[in-house]
Parts: sequence; C-alpha cells; structure tokens
Amino acid sequence: MYPNMARWDQEEIFPLDVLQKAAGLGFGAVYCREKYGGTGLSRMDASIIFEALSQGCTSTTAYISIHNMCVWMIDEFGNDELRQKWIPQLATMEKLASYCLTEPDHGSDAANLTTSAKQKGDHFIINGAKAFISGGQDTDMNLVMCRTGEKGPKGISCILVEKGSPGLSFGKKEKKIGWNSQPTRAVIFDNCKVPVSNLVGQLGDGFKIAMRGLNGGRVNIASCSLGAAQSSLELARDHVKVRKQFGKHLEHFQHLQFKLAEMATKLVVSRNMVRMAATALDKNWPEKVSLCSMAKYFATEECFKICNQALQIHGGYGYLKDYAVQQYMRDSRVHEILEGTNEIMRVLISRDLLEDRKYS
Amino acid sequence: MYPNMARWDQEEIFPLDVLQKAAGLGFGAVYCREKYGGTGLSRMDASIIFEALSQGCTSTTAYISIHNMCVWMIDEFGNDELRQKWIPQLATMEKLASYCLTEPDHGSDAANLTTSAKQKGDHFIINGAKAFISGGQDTDMNLVMCRTGEKGPKGISCILVEKGSPGLSFGKKEKKIGWNSQPTRAVIFDNCKVPVSNLVGQLGDGFKIAMRGLNGGRVNIASCSLGAAQSSLELARDHVKVRKQFGKHLEHFQHLQFKLAEMATKLVVSRNMVRMAATALDKNWPEKVSLCSMAKYFATEECFKICNQALQIHGGYGYLKDYAVQQYMRDSRVHEILEGTNEIMRVLISRDLLEDRKYS
Amino acid sequence: MYPNMARWDQEEIFPLDVLQKAAGLGFGAVYCREKYGGTGLSRMDASIIFEALSQGCTSTTAYISIHNMCVWMIDEFGNDELRQKWIPQLATMEKLASYCLTEPDHGSDAANLTTSAKQKGDHFIINGAKAFISGGQDTDMNLVMCRTGEKGPKGISCILVEKGSPGLSFGKKEKKIGWNSQPTRAVIFDNCKVPVSNLVGQLGDGFKIAMRGLNGGRVNIASCSLGAAQSSLELARDHVKVRKQFGKHLEHFQHLQFKLAEMATKLVVSRNMVRMAATALDKNWPEKVSLCSMAKYFATEECFKICNQALQIHGGYGYLKDYAVQQYMRDSRVHEILEGTNEIMRVLISRDLLEDRKYS
Amino acid sequence: MYPNMARWDQEEIFPLDVLQKAAGLGFGAVYCREKYGGTGLSRMDASIIFEALSQGCTSTTAYISIHNMCVWMIDEFGNDELRQKWIPQLATMEKLASYCLTEPDHGSDAANLTTSAKQKGDHFIINGAKAFISGGQDTDMNLVMCRTGEKGPKGISCILVEKGSPGLSFGKKEKKIGWNSQPTRAVIFDNCKVPVSNLVGQLGDGFKIAMRGLNGGRVNIASCSLGAAQSSLELARDHVKVRKQFGKHLEHFQHLQFKLAEMATKLVVSRNMVRMAATALDKNWPEKVSLCSMAKYFATEECFKICNQALQIHGGYGYLKDYAVQQYMRDSRVHEILEGTNEIMRVLISRDLLEDRKYS
Repeated sequence: MYPNMARWDQEEIFPLDVLQKAAGLGFGAVYCREKYGGTGLSRMDASIIFEALSQGCTSTTAYISIHNMCVWMIDEFGNDELRQKWIPQLATMEKLASYCLTEPDHGSDAANLTTSAKQKGDHFIINGAKAFISGGQDTDMNLVMCRTGEKGPKGISCILVEKGSPGLSFGKKEKKIGWNSQPTRAVIFDNCKVPVSNLVGQLGDGFKIAMRGLNGGRVNIASCSLGAAQSSLELARDHVKVRKQFGKHLEHFQHLQFKLAEMATKLVVSRNMVRMAATALDKNWPEKVSLCSMAKYFATEECFKICNQALQIHGGYGYLKDYAVQQYMRDSRVHEILEGTNEIMRVLISRDLLEDRKYS
Repeated sequence: MYPNMARWDQEEIFPLDVLQKAAGLGFGAVYCREKYGGTGLSRMDASIIFEALSQGCTSTTAYISIHNMCVWMIDEFGNDELRQKWIPQLATMEKLASYCLTEPDHGSDAANLTTSAKQKGDHFIINGAKAFISGGQDTDMNLVMCRTGEKGPKGISCILVEKGSPGLSFGKKEKKIGWNSQPTRAVIFDNCKVPVSNLVGQLGDGFKIAMRGLNGGRVNIASCSLGAAQSSLELARDHVKVRKQFGKHLEHFQHLQFKLAEMATKLVVSRNMVRMAATALDKNWPEKVSLCSMAKYFATEECFKICNQALQIHGGYGYLKDYAVQQYMRDSRVHEILEGTNEIMRVLISRDLLEDRKYS
Repeated sequence: MYPNMARWDQEEIFPLDVLQKAAGLGFGAVYCREKYGGTGLSRMDASIIFEALSQGCTSTTAYISIHNMCVWMIDEFGNDELRQKWIPQLATMEKLASYCLTEPDHGSDAANLTTSAKQKGDHFIINGAKAFISGGQDTDMNLVMCRTGEKGPKGISCILVEKGSPGLSFGKKEKKIGWNSQPTRAVIFDNCKVPVSNLVGQLGDGFKIAMRGLNGGRVNIASCSLGAAQSSLELARDHVKVRKQFGKHLEHFQHLQFKLAEMATKLVVSRNMVRMAATALDKNWPEKVSLCSMAKYFATEECFKICNQALQIHGGYGYLKDYAVQQYMRDSRVHEILEGTNEIMRVLISRDLLEDRKYS
Repeated sequence: MYPNMARWDQEEIFPLDVLQKAAGLGFGAVYCREKYGGTGLSRMDASIIFEALSQGCTSTTAYISIHNMCVWMIDEFGNDELRQKWIPQLATMEKLASYCLTEPDHGSDAANLTTSAKQKGDHFIINGAKAFISGGQDTDMNLVMCRTGEKGPKGISCILVEKGSPGLSFGKKEKKIGWNSQPTRAVIFDNCKVPVSNLVGQLGDGFKIAMRGLNGGRVNIASCSLGAAQSSLELARDHVKVRKQFGKHLEHFQHLQFKLAEMATKLVVSRNMVRMAATALDKNWPEKVSLCSMAKYFATEECFKICNQALQIHGGYGYLKDYAVQQYMRDSRVHEILEGTNEIMRVLISRDLLEDRKYS
C-alpha cells in the first residue's frame, strides 16, 4: 500500500480492490472464528497485522480495523443466520461494514443516544442520525446502535441496517485533515425500515455490544498508531543518515540522537502496552477495559508525538506532501479522538482505579 | 479574512486583492521609515498587528510578515535608489517580495550556502537554487543570498532579483499540510543576469543582512502563532459553552476547565515573550538575538500545542475542515520549522548563555 | 545569605539576625506605605527584591515574603491604631508575622474554614486550629482568619492574635523536605482570648482580606521560585564549563546546550509572567486575580523543573547536600502547593476565562 | 520494611539485620546459580522481587539490588575459588558488596577511568579513588574497576578488594537528599595491596564485566522505581478517598481522576518495559543493551514523576516527613542519575538505533 498512500490521500480514493486483496490474506475477519468464515486468529495476531498494514497506509488500515470490529460483533453476538449471511462476504471484503454509534449530539456520551428504533410488526422503524461514520455510503451494512427502550445504556439495541434499506440516506462526504482514503459521512435514518431479524444480540444488548466491540477497536486503532509511528521513526532515522548540515550528517548531532532514542523508547513502550491489552482480550482478563483504555490513550498520544517529531526532524521537507511523514502525522491525529476520546479513556481508567483494581 | 480562510486554504488561493487592502491600512511596510514610504511603526506595533491579522488567516498573515521583513531589509540596508524604487510599491503591495535564503542542501546551515553570484561587468551572473520560497513565482522581487566571495558567512551578499530576470525560473508549486494561501516554490537561477546596482548593502554583507532580517522575521512569525492560538483558544472556549455531553455543557468538566486555564496561561506567557523580543529590537538590546530566538521557539511550540489541544477539545469536529481550528493547527505547524528551525533557536540561545550573557 | 543557606537548612535555623539585617535594607515592609513605616515600593520592586534575595536562600526569603504579605494586610485593611502599633516593628522585623488561613481540613477550600471567633464583651474567644503555619511559635503575631458569622466566605473575619495570648498554643515543629530555615507548626486556639480591637478590617471582611493578601503573596512566592531557578541555572552553567567527560567539557555536548537553552527560556518567560502580575497589582488591573494565578502556577512549576534539571546536569553531585542545587529544588518544591495550590490557580483562571475576560 | 523506612531515612540507619532477613528469603543472590549458593531465579523474578521490596523501602532495596549485581558478577565472571569463598556469604548478606566504577572525574565516561592497579609479584598495587560508592566502608568487599593496561575500555580489569586491605580508606559519609538508609562514601586506594587471585575474570575484562553487570543493575534499579511509584500511587489514591475539600472527597474531582489515570497508565507501561528488559537478559536477546537502557531511563523518569505527582496530590501533607510519599520521591530521584545517567542511556539507545537494530 505504501506506494499508493499519498495518492489515495490526495485524491481521496477508497481503495476497494486493495481491501479485497488484504482480505484474500485473511485480514477481513482476523479474529472471527473459522467455522463462520473468519481467520481464527487472536487479538494479539490482529494487533501485529494492523500495525504492519498501517505502515503501508494508516488510514486504509484503520478502516480495515473498523470493519474487523464489526465482523467480530456479528461473530460474537449475532445469531447463526446473521453469521452465515454476513461473515463470509465480510471476510472477503466483497461487502464492507460500518459501525454506527456516535451521534451529532452524543459523542462521548453514547449511553444517552437518541436514534430510535420502534418495532412495528416484523420491522424496526428507525429515526435519527449518526455522525462521523467511517465508510459512509460506500459500505454495505451498518451496525447501528438505536434506542429501543428505556433511557440510558439498557435501552439500546444493535440493529444491522443494510445499504439500500428504505429511509436510509447519507450526509455529504466530510473534508478531513487526514483519513482521506476512507469516506466519512453522516448516516441518516428517516423512517428507515429494517426487518426484526436484523437485530444483533437481544433487545437491550446494544450498549454492551458496542462497548465490547470497542475494546477490540481500541486495541486495533492503537495498533494502527504503532505502525504510523514505526514508519515515521524509520523515515526520520533514514533522513538523518543522508541529510547533511554544517558539514556532517544529522545523525551526528547529539540532540537528534537523543530525540531518536526517546522516540524509539516511546514506540517500544507503546507497543508493549498495546500487546498487553490484546492479551487481556485474548485471555479475558478482568481488567481488560482499563488495559484497552490505557493502550488506546497512551499509544495514540505517544505515537502522534513520534510522527510529529519525525516531521520536525525532516525540517521543511516534513511539511510537504511529497514526504510521507506528514501523512502519518495527519492520519494518526484522529486516533486520539475516535473510538472513545482519550479523555473518555481516562474516565474509564480512573473508574477502575478508584475501585482498587490492580493492573499487574 | 476569517470568512475566507477556509476557502483560500482548500482552493490554494493567494489573495492578492486582500493583501493590497491590508497594505492600504499600512500593513505592507509596517516598520519601515515613513520617509521612504513605510508606515513608521515599531516592532512592537508590528507584533500586535500580525497577531491580530493572523486570527483572520494565519497563512496569509505569515506571508505578509515575510514581505515586511523583506521591505525592511531594503529600508535598512539598501541604498536610496533601491529604497525609492521599491519601498513605495512594496508598501502598497502592488509589488510583492520573497526572501531567498534556504537552499535544498543548506537549511539550518545558511552560512555555507552555495548559490553563486559572479560579477561580470555591471551584472551579477547567479547560479544555484533556493528552496521553500514563500511567494515563489507570484512575487515581483526576490532578496537572494548568494556567495560572492570566500567560504562561510563573510562571502555572502544580498542581491535583489526582479521577476522576469533572464535565467530566473521556478519549481513546481509545493503541496503542503498548511500555509496553502501562499504558494511555495523552488527558485532557480541558471546564469541569471542581474544588474550590479541590485546589490543590497555591501559585498559580503549578505549573511549579516539575512540574520538581521530574520530577527524581526522570527518575532513576526511568532506573532502569527499567537494569533492562531488566540483564535483556537476562543473557538475551544466557545465550543465548551455550547457542546453538551452527559447532560451538561463541556465547560463544567474540570479537566477541560484546567486545560483551558493552561492554554490561556501558555498563550499569555508566549505573548509576553514575543513582546519582550519586539522591545529588544525596538531598543536594540544587546541580547536581542537570544530574545528573538526564545520568542520564536517558545511561542511557536506552545501555540502549536494550544491549537492542537483546541482541536482535541472539539472532538471529531476538530478533524473536519468545516471547523477552523484544524487550519490554525496546520498553518502554525510550519512556524516551528522555518525562519530558523526551533533547533537552531536553541543553538543561538545556548551560545549566548554559555558566554554568560544575562537576560533580565 | 548564600554562604549560610546549607547550614540553616541542615540545622533548621531560623536566622532572626539576618532577617533584621534584611529589614534594615527596607525588606521588612517593602510595599507598605512610608507614612506608616513601610518602604513604599511597588509590587514590581518587591518581586525583583524577593527574586534576588531568594538566590541567597529561597526558604528564608519565602518567609520574608509571607511576613511582607502580613504587614501589607495591616497597612491596607487595619485601622490607624493597628498600623501605628505594628507596622514600624514589623518593618524592622523586630517583630515577625504569621499568616493563618489553612486548617487541617480546609486547605484549598478556605471559604469553609471552621476556626470560630465568638465576641464576648470586648474580646473574641477563638477556638480551632490552623495548619502549616510558617513562623509558627517563633513569630510575634498571627493574622488569623476566623468564622465570626454565617457559613461561606462572608462569615469570615481577620483577627490579629498576639503571641502570648491566653489559650494560644502550637503544634510540634514539622519535619519537611525543604523550607527548613523557617519553622512550620500548627497554631491552636483553645478559648483563646483576644481584644476586639485586634479585628483587622470589618467583621465579615476576612475572606476578602485573605484573598487580597494572597494575590500579592502569590507574586512574591513566584518571585522566590525565580531566584531559585536563576541560581540553579547559573550553577548548572558553571558546572558544564568545568566538568569534563569524554575528553571535553560538558558545555560542548549539544544535549546539554539545548537543555540549558530551554531552561534559560523558561526562566525568562516565567519572569515576564511574574512581572506582569506584579504590574497588574500595581495598576489594579481587573484581571489581576487571573494574572497572579497564572504567574504563581506557571513560574513555580517551570522553575521547579529548572532546578530539578539543573540537579540532573550535576550528575551524582546534584544529589549531595554539599551542592546547593538540590536545596533550591527542595525549597522551591513547596511553592507549587502553598498560597493556593497550583490546582486552585487553574480553577481561578478558568473561572475568569469562561466569563470571557481577556488577558492581553 | 515499610514501618521503618521513615526512621531509617531520618536517622540514616543502614539496617543490617533486615538485610540479612531479606537474604534469608533468598534475596541476597537472587539470580545467581544455586550450585554456587545463589537463589537461581531469573531476572524477571528479580525484577518482581525488587519492585515488591522497594515498596517497603526504596533506598534499602536499591542497596540490595546493587549487592545482587555484585554477587552476580562473581557468579558469572569469577573463578571457582572466588565463587566458593564469596557467594555463600554474600547470599546470606553476612558479607556485603560494593560496586566501584565511578570516579570523581569519570562518571559517565567510565572507559577512561584512571584508578590504576599495577601488578607487583602476586599482588596488585592500587592507587586512585572511587566516588559515590553505595555501602562505602560498611561493606566487606568492593568490586573495583582499575586500569591495568592501555587507555580506553580494554585496559580495565575488575579486582575484588576486601575490607581491611592495606591502603584502603574511605571518605566522609555523604549527606544526600535521599537514599539515606545506605551510606555513600568515596573509596580511596593509597598503594592498596590486593592479591592477584582477587582478579575477577581476565585482565582487560573489567569494562565488559562492569557493563554486563550494569545491564542487570539497570533493570534492578528501574524495578526499585516501579515499587516507589506503585506505593506513591496507592498513597495518592487512598488520600483522595479520605480527604475532603469543597464538601466532597477529592476522588470526585475530575482533574485528580485524570491525573490518577495517567499515573496508573505510566506505571503500567513502565512496568511492561522493565519486564521486557528483564526478559531480554533472561533470553540473552541481541538488543538487550538498548532494552535495558530504555527500561532504565523511561521507568526511572516516569516513576519519579508519578511520585512527585502523588506528593502534589497530598497537598501540604506531601511536603512533610510524616508522610511516606515524599520519601519515595526523594529516594527515587537518584535513579535517574546512577548506574549510567539517563543521558547515557539515550546515547546507548541511539547508537543501536542508528545501526538499524529493531526492537520488537
């Protein structure tokens, strides 16, 4: 993907063919069970895969990671009918998935979302809107968290809304700082009619499903930040070896040596944290929510700083779109915001901490 | 400018008409002497003006500040002929100026630049190339630092090269992360022929002229960062007052209150530092080089962080080009790199410090 | 003071004779009016004086600054009788003052303090306790904030309690990390009897008086941090010039050059901020509370970091009590906590900020 | 140890009895081979042990960790005679060891040390001095790095110098900010006579031995920082649960919640990094030097910040010696300096990095 990442960014291309090639390698449903069509790998494997892919194109890989989160939600919470219908097609990425939780007025506060789904015979009638949806109208199905019952988290259900459902429409394609190889749109439900059989899990399970999905999503997105930072660090290291100033290569300036040492260290510690969170999911540790939150906030912040510092090391070249380092910086910036802002991560960690849970 | 800054950014428009309107208010030659056509204000005034304009469009203002640096170089070092010919036209911004110091292989290490100017009769023949030139082929004159003599800083001279000079050409328009309302190009000299009367100052004065210009340029660009940060802080403050989550406005969350307090403080201390450096120039304090370096590195770094933090406070909206905060972040990012990287600023400060100069 | 600061620290000596010598230079009542016996200088002068003295001994100077705050409270809010009785003696530091606001259970939340003063004929009967009182039983008078009325800030009054008052006693001398040249104790009131004429200001004015005093106190204590940082920076600079490693003086290592440059810059920006706050008090600017809060939090945090970094530059020597740098670090550490913690400073700043006050 | 740590600190007690009790649990020679009298555990075990002990008393544990480093050097590089003589007694801590590398003029630059050992018959005659030696004259043997040959690292040998050797003396007991439960002194060699059989390893192996020892020493000392930070975090968490301000417990203030979340995260990532370095030693990974350096610098810096932040959360109480948090801060401060300063760690990491070694 690396040779194309600049073009996809600048021309805003969603590279469907490349997604399918990646799926051909098993990357469409990495940690879904093989018996339903998934690749059957662990979260640890997924983390390593997304990190590696992200070096090629962070934005594209980030979408793949969201797609994987959705497929897993079908695998984990869907009934057999939904699994059989969707997982094989999603695993090959012939069909693509979107995750619809955030609303224009309910970002961090997902438990109070207002998109409603009212049951009418054997259909749900959905009304409302979701914002910042990766994939937007270019995907084939949306996992939509809707209010089907009482206020708060227990009144939310997860409903699969296929593309082409009556009453389903999309907002304009958003112009963003980065993540340009994947379209982002609002998803709008205007008396959108969906069969009751599209319910994922039980009525009222939606918030739990959404959060369980996000645990993995957070490890995935943090892994994408690792890839961006790894590439940025390598670009910086290569740059200091060829660039000369004051009669010697930049690599001989102690300030830059120390900066590189600090960047490498922060990358290694970020990676260790992300891998630990992946293990927590694989082994279902009780402190998994906190560990995924730590991995997400720490790795995405530190890796952004690594990318940004690598840009600085490039001097003026780092500001030009001809050089990849700036794209890693732009693409990874949003990782600090989405799938739960890093502020929300701190809320989750402190909640556990103040209940005396240990993390060791 | 504020209503246009997004459009100028996205469509990469260099708003010549607006520049001339700004010049009509005296902003084309702020700190040049009135007798030659300048506005006759102080560096302190200039700092306040560039900060204010930068709130409207940081990128455009940054170009204006570079233009001002060039005009001042004519005012300070040019002979009367050059002053009379150029300052009035530059002051109105009917003609625009570019500053040509950086070369592809000599960024921070300007004293070893290699663009050569050989005197042949009553002309200089210039060969070489300059990189990252703001204004590029859209400006009317270039102040070019050329090697006319020995190695090192003392062999450099400052030569004015008019647009249209034989042998003058330009590279492609660079694609950048920000600063999109001003074109950036390489400037190429291929046996470029320029009359000897275009020499600014004396032969061998070029490095001194370039550095003297940059002292002011650094205060100016730091002032542009102040404006970007001021606007970003205001946008963040406005956002927390209207955005609700968890049933209350964001302004009631202590974490955000503290972040805003820190951002405001860092803006005030940055501003004080920039103003002190402006005073150092106005009063020609002996420690002016260090103080301008401190102002440039400290303010551009802290203000970038303020912009970036303001983006974070906007959540997902901060990543969208519909919201101005991301543009302040992108535009101000390059201030940490140009007019002497912030690394070079530290070199200059430590040099003075280790010679025991006091800054109080 | 510099030759004695280590001894005063290690032997926990409160140097009364030196305090009186300092008072002989006018430092006992710097910004009190001359007509009542003060020195009649500005807050700006006081800031410069405390910074300079603090280079000699930060802990001792910090006490002097608290003493000054108290004297000013008499000057500003006391009646003529109190002024005439106290200011001349305090100005010479024959008599010393303590400021008694904090209680064991009410640190940051001073408005809810519980030490009570009940009027009984022409006396107040005071009950309660104050914690962390600088000067403790070694001073001659205490300005005590007591509850004389309703709950909250409006029920507080400021009462002068002389040493030797019946019912006045003191806790044990606290062992501290630093600030060892001034004693710290609890002050205990057990039916402590004080004449009504010792009321400073009006009944119910106490909280206002305490806060007004603290504005200046914050500038003073921030000034003490400046002195500690200035000395630490000079010690670090001197150290890198004499200490050799790897065959060259430390001053030739770029990492240390950059660190020194950053320390110097942060000191200059801290100083500018503190001076701006002093000006805000001298000129009674409406945003003075925020500016004093900014100065206090920013300067005390950055200056602590400078001291701590200077310690690091000393290597192992920095950890030894034979070297002064560690004492500056220990002494200045508490400045981030007292006279309103730096967390409270952020509360005060954000409160103003969210009310749209401008700071320029 | 926890109930005694304050007393040992304030009275500067080196708790020999407690060291021997710890040795009774196998902590005197944790990662030495059982056949020579060691406990036979891994570096990973040692890291966990030192972290746990360090919660009881960081300073005392740090000495134990240095002792362990020395015993391991005998185990790894000594001949059987030395092993049999020393390891059993050191394992029980009836005898104690000191590590003598640093000299007054050669701290970071150990390869150029000047303490000389000249062979004369079957003895070495040692001249010179070592500085900052933990244990000082209270230990029974010193592993001394001496110059026996050419300049540079290859001319250094490791010689065991028993207490009581002729010509061995000690400097005054240093007064330090922390680490007060272990004595620190200069060790002075004035024609100090030592049998040739006390050579550890081969002539010229000394630098290699010293560095190999330090790899483990760095993991150990970083583990001590983890313990200090873990305890500090727990103290802070406990404090916010009991301390009330403004009518509610501190734990309900979002700023403190976020600080605690960040502290916990940084502790977890530090711990992961230290454990990874321990694994690198256990498995003899090629990148072990870099990983130990990363662990040492990252963990000691972040853990100091955690301790310091925990102190801040305690408010004024954090500055008093009655509260343990300040001691963790003081004790762990020196970990950033010794066993290779954190600056040297960055040198080591960047050296590997610029040779393209991967760390994953």
